[in-house]
Amino acid sequence: MVGGGAGAFIGDVHRLAARLDGAVQLVCGAFSRDPDNCKKTGASLGLDPSRCYSDYEEMMAKEAQLPENERMEFVSIVTPNHVHFPVAKAALEAGFHVLSDKPATLNLDEARALGDIVLKSGKAYGLTHTYLGYPLVSAARQIIAEGGIGKVRKIYAEYIQGWLAKEVDNKQADWRTDPSRSGISGCMGDIGTHAHNLVEYVTGQRMSHVAADLSIFVDGRRLDDDGSALFRMDGGAKGTLSASQVCVGRENSLSIRVYGETGGLEWHQEEPNTLLRTYADRPMEVIRSAHGYLPESIQAQYRTPPGHPEGYLEAFANIYLEFVEAVRSGGGVKAGMEPAIRGMAFVEALVKSSGNNAAWTEIEA
Amino acid sequence: MVGGGAGAFIGDVHRLAARLDGAVQLVCGAFSRDPDNCKKTGASLGLDPSRCYSDYEEMMAKEAQLPENERMEFVSIVTPNHVHFPVAKAALEAGFHVLSDKPATLNLDEARALGDIVLKSGKAYGLTHTYLGYPLVSAARQIIAEGGIGKVRKIYAEYIQGWLAKEVDNKQADWRTDPSRSGISGCMGDIGTHAHNLVEYVTGQRMSHVAADLSIFVDGRRLDDDGSALFRMDGGAKGTLSASQVCVGRENSLSIRVYGETGGLEWHQEEPNTLLRTYADRPMEVIRSAHGYLPESIQAQYRTPPGHPEGYLEAFANIYLEFVEAVRSGGGVKAGMEPAIRGMAFVEALVKSSGNNAAWTEIEA
Amino acid sequence: MVGGGAGAFIGDVHRLAARLDGAVQLVCGAFSRDPDNCKKTGASLGLDPSRCYSDYEEMMAKEAQLPENERMEFVSIVTPNHVHFPVAKAALEAGFHVLSDKPATLNLDEARALGDIVLKSGKAYGLTHTYLGYPLVSAARQIIAEGGIGKVRKIYAEYIQGWLAKEVDNKQADWRTDPSRSGISGCMGDIGTHAHNLVEYVTGQRMSHVAADLSIFVDGRRLDDDGSALFRMDGGAKGTLSASQVCVGRENSLSIRVYGETGGLEWHQEEPNTLLRTYADRPMEVIRSAHGYLPESIQAQYRTPPGHPEGYLEAFANIYLEFVEAVRSGGGVKAGMEPAIRGMAFVEALVKSSGNNAAWTEIEA
Amino acid sequence: MVGGGAGAFIGDVHRLAARLDGAVQLVCGAFSRDPDNCKKTGASLGLDPSRCYSDYEEMMAKEAQLPENERMEFVSIVTPNHVHFPVAKAALEAGFHVLSDKPATLNLDEARALGDIVLKSGKAYGLTHTYLGYPLVSAARQIIAEGGIGKVRKIYAEYIQGWLAKEVDNKQADWRTDPSRSGISGCMGDIGTHAHNLVEYVTGQRMSHVAADLSIFVDGRRLDDDGSALFRMDGGAKGTLSASQVCVGRENSLSIRVYGETGGLEWHQEEPNTLLRTYADRPMEVIRSAHGYLPESIQAQYRTPPGHPEGYLEAFANIYLEFVEAVRSGGGVKAGMEPAIRGMAFVEALVKSSGNNAAWTEIEA
Repeated sequence: MVGGGAGAFIGDVHRLAARLDGAVQLVCGAFSRDPDNCKKTGASLGLDPSRCYSDYEEMMAKEAQLPENERMEFVSIVTPNHVHFPVAKAALEAGFHVLSDKPATLNLDEARALGDIVLKSGKAYGLTHTYLGYPLVSAARQIIAEGGIGKVRKIYAEYIQGWLAKEVDNKQADWRTDPSRSGISGCMGDIGTHAHNLVEYVTGQRMSHVAADLSIFVDGRRLDDDGSALFRMDGGAKGTLSASQVCVGRENSLSIRVYGETGGLEWHQEEPNTLLRTYADRPMEVIRSAHGYLPESIQAQYRTPPGHPEGYLEAFANIYLEFVEAVRSGGGVKAGMEPAIRGMAFVEALVKSSGNNAAWTEIEA
Repeated sequence: MVGGGAGAFIGDVHRLAARLDGAVQLVCGAFSRDPDNCKKTGASLGLDPSRCYSDYEEMMAKEAQLPENERMEFVSIVTPNHVHFPVAKAALEAGFHVLSDKPATLNLDEARALGDIVLKSGKAYGLTHTYLGYPLVSAARQIIAEGGIGKVRKIYAEYIQGWLAKEVDNKQADWRTDPSRSGISGCMGDIGTHAHNLVEYVTGQRMSHVAADLSIFVDGRRLDDDGSALFRMDGGAKGTLSASQVCVGRENSLSIRVYGETGGLEWHQEEPNTLLRTYADRPMEVIRSAHGYLPESIQAQYRTPPGHPEGYLEAFANIYLEFVEAVRSGGGVKAGMEPAIRGMAFVEALVKSSGNNAAWTEIEA
Repeated sequence: MVGGGAGAFIGDVHRLAARLDGAVQLVCGAFSRDPDNCKKTGASLGLDPSRCYSDYEEMMAKEAQLPENERMEFVSIVTPNHVHFPVAKAALEAGFHVLSDKPATLNLDEARALGDIVLKSGKAYGLTHTYLGYPLVSAARQIIAEGGIGKVRKIYAEYIQGWLAKEVDNKQADWRTDPSRSGISGCMGDIGTHAHNLVEYVTGQRMSHVAADLSIFVDGRRLDDDGSALFRMDGGAKGTLSASQVCVGRENSLSIRVYGETGGLEWHQEEPNTLLRTYADRPMEVIRSAHGYLPESIQAQYRTPPGHPEGYLEAFANIYLEFVEAVRSGGGVKAGMEPAIRGMAFVEALVKSSGNNAAWTEIEA
Repeated sequence: MVGGGAGAFIGDVHRLAARLDGAVQLVCGAFSRDPDNCKKTGASLGLDPSRCYSDYEEMMAKEAQLPENERMEFVSIVTPNHVHFPVAKAALEAGFHVLSDKPATLNLDEARALGDIVLKSGKAYGLTHTYLGYPLVSAARQIIAEGGIGKVRKIYAEYIQGWLAKEVDNKQADWRTDPSRSGISGCMGDIGTHAHNLVEYVTGQRMSHVAADLSIFVDGRRLDDDGSALFRMDGGAKGTLSASQVCVGRENSLSIRVYGETGGLEWHQEEPNTLLRTYADRPMEVIRSAHGYLPESIQAQYRTPPGHPEGYLEAFANIYLEFVEAVRSGGGVKAGMEPAIRGMAFVEALVKSSGNNAAWTEIEA
């Protein structure tokens, strides 16, 4: 693991998720650029001190020298955004699979470069688009793929939070609002990309164009803390996508609603065990987690029976399980290099459109 | 009453709403261009046959000749959209107050002309923007006006239905999809304007610009059956507004969410007795109808105690009560000529932006 | 109308409901034992002063002397409970149909006596068990009657409020907590009977036995303000029924859930336009008001399309419409003399069981 | 771990929960009376084959002989109910702490005997009353303890499921409906005890008396599959408690509502990240997980920020964390021997009352 020292958020989440199913064991780390923090974090995790490295370069070099059955199998990258690319590059080039927190890189150019590196390496590359780990998100994708709501027409996607409604002075907020560490977009890059990814995954279509309006509501902030976009899909659907970090009182409200010619689907991350399905001439159905009426591939993603709520950590753990399976079997992952590149292209198109009178702008990926 | 013969929808609603509180008595009508329908409707409503007129011109003329204490006090207009203007004009010029179904006219030019006529007439003019009749909508406006959520930043407004997801062959659908009777917009003119009106009423700000994308999803339809827009308010807030009639399974889902610097509000027409209020550092509150903790002016809009759900007809009846009060006291109404003009200008701006690469377009009213 | 002067609650509700559909016209009243209040109420309702009577005896006598096409058709009784019986008796014996607020009488003996009087009179007798006026309550009954959930096994019924959690000093609270005006039970007589009635109506079975525990939580109160009961139905189902007026923060929370061998139903008065239907091996369905998938007889009970919430007043108006239809056609009503007697017997059984160590006690009606 | 071989449900849950936070390591097991199943389970969990024991007696004996820093610290018991007692006894007598699935024993006598054994052993004893692991359950207890809703008056507790609405033929259903393995009660013993435990934990009062009605709805079943009870608390509160496994379509619907003199609280296991709080004269509050407005001791029970749903496994893991803390620090646990005994006494009182005309029956513990 690279990143995830004391004071970080997502590192802990990765470790919880990786541990849950017992399929992954943490064996080494470069948790912080602060050597003390790194050692302490390693110790608290019960790691061999000799495998708590001072930086990722050292980690790649030393681990690569260990016998195959001792060295780490893959690298989890949980650093701030601007370090995702160099670490991934180093890991892949040292012969390790990579599971990276999103975004894959700081910008589209880097993402394309990384794509080439992945191809050349022949290694597995996964992006923790966590929300794809919710089984009912897969169920929604499957219903649509099977024509369950007819040809998709309209999509509403939203990811709204309130935690940056005021100036916030902590480690989490700092790098998210700093262009040198977050890239050209704050809110849209951080959470809008999750909504974009969800739209493409669930509908099986690609977003082709956006007309966007990004905003900075908090004085002195340098990156967008809010934004909305109209969009068009390559399959003919249209929609709106909003992301905000200034909606006071909202927690982590990611949702998607998709309407087709004959039905609709609605899912909310904060109540992830429910999927609403509408019909033209029948009552709405409330599809619930783990039921026997779900496809077996969906049921298999649950650890407990219906009525035992599973949440964010279980979704995250599903992402880990899928990645481990990909590493071992050579199979694919829901979110790999392609969504990574598409997400970066989405953000670039948003910024461009927002600065260009909301003109329809192509997503070039 | 003009319009509202057998087969019409909104005429009945007006009559139910007018009757509920006993403050209005229907005394005459020109219910249909079909004289039989007109007579039959009048008879079923217990009207004097001599006051069931064959057309609105006759009605204005004959009623104006009756003694003041016998003739009608005001005219309710419940015809298809394209007849709203000529009837209103005739009524006002004959000296009658007018309560018109929305939109006020077929286009912005007519709306402005009607504005002049109203001014000259000195009569009351009201538009049944029904949803302003819900007491918790007024409560939301009041909370915002008093600074209860701080300066408004972001607004999400939505009005989605599913009933036109297929070609529909009935009287209701016919005129709504016919440019000669509905004007330049279908869905946005019909229901998007309600959302626009709600945004301006609740925030107390004016929408200044839109960037829009209108769509026709059902083959052969001549007017938009769906649309979304980014918008900006003159007070600095931004938002999105979506309206659709092709969201399969959705009924009459009008909602508004407003987030300011220190809090937020959320209201849904289909659960109108609940208003959600968020704070930065306190739990969300569920404000409910008719409670003693509401301002007295809001409490006074309920007919029953908390827990006795009031709905659409009661909201409509509130609009009637307010109009009757305006007629008798010379006071104002929530939705009069100004919102009428603004609604038409909103639609024109949407159509213009949608045809112009989603360019930001001013609402000229 | 007898009762319903200024300061009363339910009189206004009756008048609103009666007026809504234009099927009933208020022509006379004995609104209060206070002659001033009576006259003033009559005047505010636009009644002929000569038909504002000083008491119900005068009203029955004078109205009976009017020509048939002028005199009132039926009497609405909206007095406190202890006056329901004498007024109903007087009205029926004077040849008028009766629509009475519930409970029909102060105790079971009176209810049986009234039953005989109704029979002898040949007149229509209706009880405003308002909640039966909600169309989805009828839909629930119909689904169960058709075997839609299989043989009924378990029923949960509840009616909880919070308004009497403290000593309350007003007209509404006064008579409800006074044995001489409310009978042997407060909360159970006032609202528990609604839950009992709902259970019998929806399931089509009769409650045969109860094991109960009634409570007085507020010091100094003389009648129960809370109670719960286990119950058994004559068709083999079992259940619990709770009523309370001391559940702080609850409004008017009447609900019923019924589970049979193959499915279940759930309905809440405060969200009356939704009926939940569960299955053994399919997702729960959210049945909503006014939809084309409802039986036509249910659809006919709505005044507006899906998504236009109808509430308490519309339900009340449905009770009026049904009664007017019964008066005119000689047909039946959902809640007439039989439910009236059963409700009184239910209350007597509760009180008996509660005083007898919660022993199973037969409902003798 | 004793129990939890292939085909079991709760063993897996224990292992997931224990693993999540990395605080517990599984080192040995007697997973099944079938030696093959036992070995295979051990192997799949990566255990040393020499520590996969053929039965719990062997496990206690062999582990006790290992050096202190190698042998297991505590035993998790996840067998069917009738084996809980003998395993716990053996473990405690061999000097191991015990974390047992509930119920602690098959009947009240055994529970008392176990209580003595625990006392004598000086070891920690914990019962996985999982639902106490939800942080908002602790928050509810704390609010009530601090007088946040005033003196408690009325409690509604419910635990309803639908999975046994038909005869079910699997391992889970088998032992739950077999008196020799489940004791004198099926549904009430299995899930009613969770509701009982929740009532006592949240209110901080003891249930003193019940009046109950237990039922067998499915033909041929030998133990109750449904039941309801009226109850009284030693602090003066009253309530109802229902448990059912025949409510078709219900999943795992455990809930509690508590009303005091000045407020109320409502919590549902299936939406565990929300706690509703009512007031007499203010809007209801929606308290949500992990917020800064919660007491720090509650915040500390979350692993992720607000809006990241935590569920059943996280609650279970909290139980494990608390037990590990108790083992290491000698502190207490939410659910230890006392709730174990009280739960058994509760079930005995229910069965007695149900067979005795619902007579009020004391809970003797």
